[in-house]
Amino acid sequence: MTRKLKRLIDRSRQVFIVAHVDPDGDTIGSALGLARSLRKMGKDCTLACADSVPDALLFLPGVEEFGIPRLTDEDLIIAVDVSHPNRLGQAYRHLPSLDTPMVNIDHHFTNSMFGTINLVRIEATATAEIIFDLLQEWEVLLDSVLATHLLTGIVTDTQSFSTPSTTPRILEVSSQLMKAGASLTEIHENYYKKREVETLHLWGRILAEMQLDDQLVWSVSTLDMQSRSHAAPDDGDGIVNLLATARQAKAAIMFTENEDGKIGISIRSRPGVDISPIAIHFGGGGHPQAAGTELLGDLCEVIPKVLIKAKDVLNAHDPK
Amino acid sequence: MTRKLKRLIDRSRQVFIVAHVDPDGDTIGSALGLARSLRKMGKDCTLACADSVPDALLFLPGVEEFGIPRLTDEDLIIAVDVSHPNRLGQAYRHLPSLDTPMVNIDHHFTNSMFGTINLVRIEATATAEIIFDLLQEWEVLLDSVLATHLLTGIVTDTQSFSTPSTTPRILEVSSQLMKAGASLTEIHENYYKKREVETLHLWGRILAEMQLDDQLVWSVSTLDMQSRSHAAPDDGDGIVNLLATARQAKAAIMFTENEDGKIGISIRSRPGVDISPIAIHFGGGGHPQAAGTELLGDLCEVIPKVLIKAKDVLNAHDPK
Repeated sequence: MTRKLKRLIDRSRQVFIVAHVDPDGDTIGSALGLARSLRKMGKDCTLACADSVPDALLFLPGVEEFGIPRLTDEDLIIAVDVSHPNRLGQAYRHLPSLDTPMVNIDHHFTNSMFGTINLVRIEATATAEIIFDLLQEWEVLLDSVLATHLLTGIVTDTQSFSTPSTTPRILEVSSQLMKAGASLTEIHENYYKKREVETLHLWGRILAEMQLDDQLVWSVSTLDMQSRSHAAPDDGDGIVNLLATARQAKAAIMFTENEDGKIGISIRSRPGVDISPIAIHFGGGGHPQAAGTELLGDLCEVIPKVLIKAKDVLNAHDPK
Repeated sequence: MTRKLKRLIDRSRQVFIVAHVDPDGDTIGSALGLARSLRKMGKDCTLACADSVPDALLFLPGVEEFGIPRLTDEDLIIAVDVSHPNRLGQAYRHLPSLDTPMVNIDHHFTNSMFGTINLVRIEATATAEIIFDLLQEWEVLLDSVLATHLLTGIVTDTQSFSTPSTTPRILEVSSQLMKAGASLTEIHENYYKKREVETLHLWGRILAEMQLDDQLVWSVSTLDMQSRSHAAPDDGDGIVNLLATARQAKAAIMFTENEDGKIGISIRSRPGVDISPIAIHFGGGGHPQAAGTELLGDLCEVIPKVLIKAKDVLNAHDPK
């Protein structure tokens, strides 16, 4: 598999690297690390993402290269951390149907195997781990920038080494990346410690609204709560992980009202409880312990609908 | 140093192991790991802590052994993660003045070197790392329980590998502990993910009250807020780390009103900003980025006093 990939890369000159919509640290860090490595191997690279990169990741060297370019002379496409063509976004959904060969490098177990070559390793902690292994195989020398890209992917996808996907091996890989010059402190300071006071005020309101419903905790970020906190809808991102720390909760759901009429839905669960079916049922996706989707509608319609489905999934998992 | 320690241990039969007051994961995990190791070496051990072990650590095997026993036939005392005799608590403050030899194993840079032997390594990430190194030297075989004790010390003292004290080496040590059977998931599920809904409601109130004052963020947990959330004073523990994630904050301070008339004060800071002088000024202690103390008085008297001192310390650090 990786040999076939190496042959494809050897034959290519210009590589189009695509990250997934609603980009996170793993897709951005992995794409940047891959581009930097391919350039060391003499290739030209274009970095694409249908959505803009979140502020928390703008510290990454090279991140300003991301845009929504059209595919032109590129002779190879690599999708990074993308589980399904839908996750390429409207701008790039068509890519898998083109004649240009497409490599699919990912670790999501929901991956739909849409590539010409599918390097999908579901046991990998992050896509950045797969990239790390490729670089070892290709004998690409790590530098501090490359190491920072990959460590960002690992740290963000494991929520700072706290998810059950954190393996002894990923700790070793991360140790090697630190030795190669990646600064864990820089990643934490930039990614986790630049919250606006308004964001934390919004979090306060969300926590105060938090409800416990049997094995489920959930809360909401309404447009009104956002405006009273002088915050934006995506300022509530991340709070779902805090809701999920409630002792009684097998799962946590966060509903976020957006100005475009869509309700963002983020779901988290305890190890061993697979909540991805809830997200998939409503057209989304993700991991067993972290998934999400968005629905058109208003809160009083969307919330009960999702809670009912969520209870079904939790009860199927643990019948009373 | 460690040879001298080994000779002392070889000559001893009964070891009295003391953790510090207001015990955290590192003092409890290190003390438990040390006791288990010394027992493997044929010694009897007594585990002592002047305060009771917090609920979040009660999952640790053997933790029920902690109590406030009197020193009787023990021929060696080992203080674990204790920076100063005051931190032994009233019950044990006198121990360093006894004839019984006292070993002081710690990593706090404020350590007052009160032992007969002082194994104080300020470059160590956690006291658990020092214990780990001793076990390697003593050729004590790791088992899953011992590994869990030590990994708990590391995970809690680094706030899940997020503090600047997280070194490449501690990631490797943690990887080895996981390979020896420690479950990172179990530690996270028990330590971080058993919050009461009431605790999270209190956190919501605390975040909503959060104030930004130049380079300082601070908030408060009053008895009234605690009672309206059906929560206890120590349910606010940990929230100071969240306050410290505010972008503008060089430091974060949390004031907690207690029923005994004392105000608990927790301080956190950015890497490079040493706030331990604030805590030390008011009779407390800690690390450059995490320190604390408690003061008698009421909030409207204590808060301005501490904020003024805090601003002095921040300004001395970064004069305008």
